[in-house]
Amino acid sequence: MEQETQNPLDNIRIVLVGTLYTGNVGSACRAMANMGIRRLRLAAPNLQNSWEEGNRLAVHATELIENREEFATFEEAVADCVAVVGTTARGGLYRQHVRAPRDCAADILALAATGPVAVVFGREDKGLLNEEVAQCTHLIRIPVDEGYTSINLAQAVLITCYELFTATGRYQPPHEKAPPAPQGQKMQLMKMWREMLEDIGYMDEQKADHMMQGIHRVFSRGVVTKDDAALLLGVARQAVWAHRHPALDGGRRTSEEFRT
Amino acid sequence: MEQETQNPLDNIRIVLVGTLYTGNVGSACRAMANMGIRRLRLAAPNLQNSWEEGNRLAVHATELIENREEFATFEEAVADCVAVVGTTARGGLYRQHVRAPRDCAADILALAATGPVAVVFGREDKGLLNEEVAQCTHLIRIPVDEGYTSINLAQAVLITCYELFTATGRYQPPHEKAPPAPQGQKMQLMKMWREMLEDIGYMDEQKADHMMQGIHRVFSRGVVTKDDAALLLGVARQAVWAHRHPALDGGRRTSEEFRT
Repeated sequence: MEQETQNPLDNIRIVLVGTLYTGNVGSACRAMANMGIRRLRLAAPNLQNSWEEGNRLAVHATELIENREEFATFEEAVADCVAVVGTTARGGLYRQHVRAPRDCAADILALAATGPVAVVFGREDKGLLNEEVAQCTHLIRIPVDEGYTSINLAQAVLITCYELFTATGRYQPPHEKAPPAPQGQKMQLMKMWREMLEDIGYMDEQKADHMMQGIHRVFSRGVVTKDDAALLLGVARQAVWAHRHPALDGGRRTSEEFRT
Repeated sequence: MEQETQNPLDNIRIVLVGTLYTGNVGSACRAMANMGIRRLRLAAPNLQNSWEEGNRLAVHATELIENREEFATFEEAVADCVAVVGTTARGGLYRQHVRAPRDCAADILALAATGPVAVVFGREDKGLLNEEVAQCTHLIRIPVDEGYTSINLAQAVLITCYELFTATGRYQPPHEKAPPAPQGQKMQLMKMWREMLEDIGYMDEQKADHMMQGIHRVFSRGVVTKDDAALLLGVARQAVWAHRHPALDGGRRTSEEFRT
């Protein structure tokens, strides 16, 4: 068992208590693997069907099912953990201590940097019992709409793991690679377009200022990078060129759509 | 169809393209309902099994399945939408425009305040086709661990809807209701505990300052509210009382555990 680790997610133990259906275990394992969490514990499992469905829904995460640890009781499943995070959908006794997963993900990761942390999910039908909730050091409730609060077990596992994974900052979202267009290039773009729109006869000089405000409005929203600006500079140059080079049939290069 | 609405989630259309399995549709509907999003569209559905499984997994969200809209093509399914948000797991052509759902949830809600917004999910096996991605106005990719990037369709729907629901700020997490303990009450607590611990013979005066530092360390972490402080003040008072009122058998009230 990891105690000190570079990656706090390695110290997260997803503990499913009294789970009824292997399908939920399998879906939970796939969700865990998606979020870089791979250690599953079953406490007092009460499985009503075979692992066939569980393995099918785990898809390529069946390894998590194979490597699961099983415990006879809740207490044994969390005994080695430095923190026990319970998930609850209900109000009542401990309500005032409950936080949203996003609000305590950083705290949980900080604890997981020091030792194993159990994140505990109750039964499909009854959740965690009061005596189990009383043993938790942290309680979280997943935000749901008042109109339909009953969340599937594997979906609850997913959101909780997603918040932990996101809070690690390990995921680098893809980002714009082209550098931003400098103001000078943007002004050059507006100048070229003005010349082009006059050249091809789209507007005359009297109306140019007004129409260029519209062009500027559109471009200021859409032209973000140097590549964007270069693209539209190219369009303006080509339109001016085309105006000087009539189509081979002597007519305008006009599609049906442009004519309407 | 809502165009202007108080709740931008009413204008979100979850569009599943070429979906193969009703179970994923049912699980997606339950996830949508959990997050207050209730309008499902199927574009060119390619369902391989009956609605029995879909309805079973939707649980109490079968209404979303019944009220679904079906379209022959992707284009028709998004034609009335002011924005088309595609979800993609792949890199490639449009990679630089992809954002994480959390990073663009507010933008999507702002658009949904003006008209219908399609949030589009591709086929279980192939995702969205390149020509479909090219029609999207926004692209998102759900953060997943590099070790297992294949996310279930309904799980992808859940995370996307969860980010939109969370971004509305409609969910108020439960919070501590008791007012915080003021410093004066905390000092009173330390004074009472010092007297009590001396009274019951847990420490003598020479060592009191040092030991009280330990008590202070624990209490400063754990005593947050007036209720917390009142609880521990009561413990101190009762211990002093008990010291003056010996147990009926004349001995100490000592459990097995305390003796070890």
